[in-house]
Amino acid sequence: MTNLEYRFLGRTGLKVSVISLGSWITYGGHVADEKAFESIKVAYDAGVNFFDTAENYSAGNAEIVLGKAIKHFGWRQNDLVISTKVYHGQNNSAHPSRPINNKGLSRKHIIEGLDASLARLQLPYVDVVFAHRPDRDTPIEEIVRAFNHVISTGKAFYWGTSEWSAAEIADAWRAADSLGLIGPAVEQPQYNLLVRDKVEDEFRWLYEKFGTGLTIWSPLKQGILTGKYNGVEKPPSDSRLANATDVYSVQYSKTFGDETWKKELALVEKLKPIAEELGVSLAALAIAWAVQNKNVSSVIIGASRPQQVTENIQALDVVEKLTADILKKIDEALGNKPAEQPRRFG
Amino acid sequence: MTNLEYRFLGRTGLKVSVISLGSWITYGGHVADEKAFESIKVAYDAGVNFFDTAENYSAGNAEIVLGKAIKHFGWRQNDLVISTKVYHGQNNSAHPSRPINNKGLSRKHIIEGLDASLARLQLPYVDVVFAHRPDRDTPIEEIVRAFNHVISTGKAFYWGTSEWSAAEIADAWRAADSLGLIGPAVEQPQYNLLVRDKVEDEFRWLYEKFGTGLTIWSPLKQGILTGKYNGVEKPPSDSRLANATDVYSVQYSKTFGDETWKKELALVEKLKPIAEELGVSLAALAIAWAVQNKNVSSVIIGASRPQQVTENIQALDVVEKLTADILKKIDEALGNKPAEQPRRFG
Amino acid sequence: MTNLEYRFLGRTGLKVSVISLGSWITYGGHVADEKAFESIKVAYDAGVNFFDTAENYSAGNAEIVLGKAIKHFGWRQNDLVISTKVYHGQNNSAHPSRPINNKGLSRKHIIEGLDASLARLQLPYVDVVFAHRPDRDTPIEEIVRAFNHVISTGKAFYWGTSEWSAAEIADAWRAADSLGLIGPAVEQPQYNLLVRDKVEDEFRWLYEKFGTGLTIWSPLKQGILTGKYNGVEKPPSDSRLANATDVYSVQYSKTFGDETWKKELALVEKLKPIAEELGVSLAALAIAWAVQNKNVSSVIIGASRPQQVTENIQALDVVEKLTADILKKIDEALGNKPAEQPRRFG
Amino acid sequence: MTNLEYRFLGRTGLKVSVISLGSWITYGGHVADEKAFESIKVAYDAGVNFFDTAENYSAGNAEIVLGKAIKHFGWRQNDLVISTKVYHGQNNSAHPSRPINNKGLSRKHIIEGLDASLARLQLPYVDVVFAHRPDRDTPIEEIVRAFNHVISTGKAFYWGTSEWSAAEIADAWRAADSLGLIGPAVEQPQYNLLVRDKVEDEFRWLYEKFGTGLTIWSPLKQGILTGKYNGVEKPPSDSRLANATDVYSVQYSKTFGDETWKKELALVEKLKPIAEELGVSLAALAIAWAVQNKNVSSVIIGASRPQQVTENIQALDVVEKLTADILKKIDEALGNKPAEQPRRFG
Repeated sequence: MTNLEYRFLGRTGLKVSVISLGSWITYGGHVADEKAFESIKVAYDAGVNFFDTAENYSAGNAEIVLGKAIKHFGWRQNDLVISTKVYHGQNNSAHPSRPINNKGLSRKHIIEGLDASLARLQLPYVDVVFAHRPDRDTPIEEIVRAFNHVISTGKAFYWGTSEWSAAEIADAWRAADSLGLIGPAVEQPQYNLLVRDKVEDEFRWLYEKFGTGLTIWSPLKQGILTGKYNGVEKPPSDSRLANATDVYSVQYSKTFGDETWKKELALVEKLKPIAEELGVSLAALAIAWAVQNKNVSSVIIGASRPQQVTENIQALDVVEKLTADILKKIDEALGNKPAEQPRRFG
Repeated sequence: MTNLEYRFLGRTGLKVSVISLGSWITYGGHVADEKAFESIKVAYDAGVNFFDTAENYSAGNAEIVLGKAIKHFGWRQNDLVISTKVYHGQNNSAHPSRPINNKGLSRKHIIEGLDASLARLQLPYVDVVFAHRPDRDTPIEEIVRAFNHVISTGKAFYWGTSEWSAAEIADAWRAADSLGLIGPAVEQPQYNLLVRDKVEDEFRWLYEKFGTGLTIWSPLKQGILTGKYNGVEKPPSDSRLANATDVYSVQYSKTFGDETWKKELALVEKLKPIAEELGVSLAALAIAWAVQNKNVSSVIIGASRPQQVTENIQALDVVEKLTADILKKIDEALGNKPAEQPRRFG
Repeated sequence: MTNLEYRFLGRTGLKVSVISLGSWITYGGHVADEKAFESIKVAYDAGVNFFDTAENYSAGNAEIVLGKAIKHFGWRQNDLVISTKVYHGQNNSAHPSRPINNKGLSRKHIIEGLDASLARLQLPYVDVVFAHRPDRDTPIEEIVRAFNHVISTGKAFYWGTSEWSAAEIADAWRAADSLGLIGPAVEQPQYNLLVRDKVEDEFRWLYEKFGTGLTIWSPLKQGILTGKYNGVEKPPSDSRLANATDVYSVQYSKTFGDETWKKELALVEKLKPIAEELGVSLAALAIAWAVQNKNVSSVIIGASRPQQVTENIQALDVVEKLTADILKKIDEALGNKPAEQPRRFG
Repeated sequence: MTNLEYRFLGRTGLKVSVISLGSWITYGGHVADEKAFESIKVAYDAGVNFFDTAENYSAGNAEIVLGKAIKHFGWRQNDLVISTKVYHGQNNSAHPSRPINNKGLSRKHIIEGLDASLARLQLPYVDVVFAHRPDRDTPIEEIVRAFNHVISTGKAFYWGTSEWSAAEIADAWRAADSLGLIGPAVEQPQYNLLVRDKVEDEFRWLYEKFGTGLTIWSPLKQGILTGKYNGVEKPPSDSRLANATDVYSVQYSKTFGDETWKKELALVEKLKPIAEELGVSLAALAIAWAVQNKNVSSVIIGASRPQQVTENIQALDVVEKLTADILKKIDEALGNKPAEQPRRFG
């Protein structure tokens, strides 16, 4: 059985499994409760302790399913790391004219949003609460104070950001430091073989300066890095794109076959010989590659079937095969490695 | 149907409808509960999300009625912005010799007063709590700490001031900054075509320096700007002045016909041709004019009848008619536009 | 009926009646509950809003009786100012070997002591909690933090000191300021015609610098200033000294007739002509004299009988008779007025 | 009967009996509940007010037994000083693959760990919570903030460290001071006649600079200083080493007879004539010697039998026999007194 590695969530004392389970378009959506429970259990039994969700995944249902699973299996919170995110609100709500303050990072929505998430999760607190997006309309002081408020009232232990720029993260730290408050411990960006700039270039000075941890999403670039879309005329009948119901997948499915799509498929093609040389699947190569970046605290997989969860975790066995030579081959094949840069401190 | 605009409450992340519903002399007073419910519902259905009240409006009944309405209609607090105010206390109480500490801005009254307001509102928190007046007998540090106390104990998200001077607001910010605490987000002054100095002159440096938001009251100057008092010998039988029971209206009704009253009626007379030119009512012109000031976050209407609520909201359609030319005509007709001034930073 | 004056408690926004009712050796002790209730009611009806007690008065019974009275009469806390004090603990307890941490100003005793006081008072909070004595064995930072802790957890609105030196009060302010915390608002010293040095000399720079308020005790110097001990061989049968059961009175009764006692009686003798000139009792003169000091927020009377309460309050009518001439006569008769001093800022 | 002395816990206002009762390998382990209750009662009746435990002693059972005893005897918390420790977690748990975050000093474990301890103790708070070991993987700011969080939420009054280095303690104070937070009041190191360096050398500058108090463990060096292991081939049948079931004792029992063991027995042999000269047991000498160090706030005894508790407390009568001459003799016999050093401030 694959041994799960645990890493610190950036410069905190919290340890997360290097593979974690997300639920962004899956649980509570097109995946039935029983199937979701099964996937969650497979992950937990394999050693995964970190489960990530958000207030808006499947319009709140993702949190409900995760909360039910924890209750169902009788797990205790000290054995788990649960994170959720506020920002998007319940934007699929039946009351479209009203969600004026049910989104964003006002003090009101951070507090009300997290309270609603905890109610859906049936938990007294989460370990990490993320600001799901930056909110340039709300002063950073208000945002920093509100996240500290939910920490000091015991509703979260840490707070983080998702899809923020390096400058925005630094600004949050500046505000936190000047107020004697807690800064964001972790950022949750997209990161995979095809999307590297933010993690490897823009953020490079954050790791040392603020100890920013990374919980990265989409290690398989919405499935493209599995190679399953290469050489097919339309999405396979069992793929997410073919069964898109949620807003994210529907939007993504529209890009099928466009210029960017074709360019990405061509890059995936170039990775095939490397995967073959190592005797591993493309998916395993992609996940292992994300894991080998030591600035990454955890790679969030969005697997919807128990079998996929197991396979994704087994990708950890591939990490040791990623020698300097192999990594160099990958960089050359993709041609997207950010250039070395002189020291930058923001 | 008129589209409601939502504006940020000054430099916060909270959004309020540009038209909001007050209840200062109305609900819980001479307006029956059912009528109040109806007006509140009309406003809510039209998109109004901000409802303003105070501990002393109708001796506490205004809060009771608003709380009942929220419960009655099953509205959730995340769809609403509720504000109340402490300072005046229950000064209509039957125990006149006792309200020694039941007013003002002592730590005791801010905490006890807000607790009593929340009990009447049947709510766990309000979005904004206002200091209804300045209290020059209480150190500003005590005031700032007490409002931060109710914020940190979850009873309010923001605090503001009402009828404070620019210097008093700046002093509160100075104290808040030096203690690392939250300053007042919003001021609630009177503002209308006849009363412009505070908002357009005295406060001008606050907007940039502290991001002070404005929720303005009396956009119709107690009804005078509707023109209904022009050319009549006594208040119309269905007007507030003719039916004054509350302390504010009684006091105001005594000014009927005095020198100031006559001067104001003369100014209203001058506005008539402009309203006619635009083909709108005087009331709509007055409300639209307040809305067009971008420093105003919300214009609080005190309408007591559902029909008035609808009409006041429809005044938003007039805003686009207020061209630079029209605004200049208004300024010239009234002769009360504050002079341009060199930069001032307090 | 005498009109009660209300004064701010030093530099706070809290107002206290200039005459207040203490309960240090009375309620819960040799005075039966019914009698205590009656005295409290007489005071309340006369306008007294401030009631002072302490954890150790009558070994906790003083708080129990005061709490019962408030409940009995249905009074609300917003109409009252209740203070208690921690330090002495329950030192009359039946477990003499154990009260190791049941006294002093450790964080433990401040929190546990106030919790126990609130339980006896049946109240969720007091308005003011006093440190009944200085505790030179506990760091001032620990003391300041603990009093701020009970304020931030809502168990008290203000904190003060009792029988601290000017330097100790200043040290508490220094610690509070350096930690951004709340300093002591009020000191409770002994003050009367025979004991003037602390209030009029040692403390003189505190009033301006820290806004220190004073709630003074023993305005009648344990009854000596009523003149009832002049010209008698032993304490009158209805006097406290003749019926001493509590530890304070027993201790005090032992001084009857000693050198200090005789010196004080001689001074009281010198006041008699002044009282006669004004046509008032010695007791009324003594209380009025304490009230006329504007640095005094409240004069705490320890009256145990309803009739005494009424008489003590009526002493307020004497204040206006204390002209500059009369005050000078008093100073000359007693010879104990502190000399004018050059400016001192500690 | 021996009079117990009470000392301040370092520079706090909390007083602890100079002899305290630990429960690290005893209660909840090989000692039955009734026996444990009896020992605890004997200690309490003799004046011991300080009882020390930890989350991991006997896998949580030590806390359970102590909590039961307090409830059983109806003791009140204001008569007790209870301390526990977080860090090791429940490392004897049946779920060995999961305690990823159930240990260390992350914010998560400090809060979750103390909550679990309080549940086992059936208490709303402890007086002191210790960081049972340093955690060099967690930033000191996170540790300091988390201990202050449990203090400000009322779950502990003070926090301390155990087995930290002087530099680590100083670093915690630096972080606390820079954040305006509370630093560690007390350190819990091993200290006895055979282990002196930390307390007498490394820590020497902490006492004055930070007021660090000491609650020392193992004054008898796991029984070696009683002399019972001298001249025997194997551990006596009633000794802890012969009945080792807990992880600590099992580990320690393995050292029986090794080089260090022999060296220590030789030193114990040298102490015998001194004990005989004073007419006291070796155990009493050892305990008295620890007590005579004025930097020690409390000597924690691990006695498992009521008779031992009584004997250990009686050792206090020996303290006055430890004259400068006797202390010098002991230093010469052991040869382990740290050299005098020039001033050091870390």
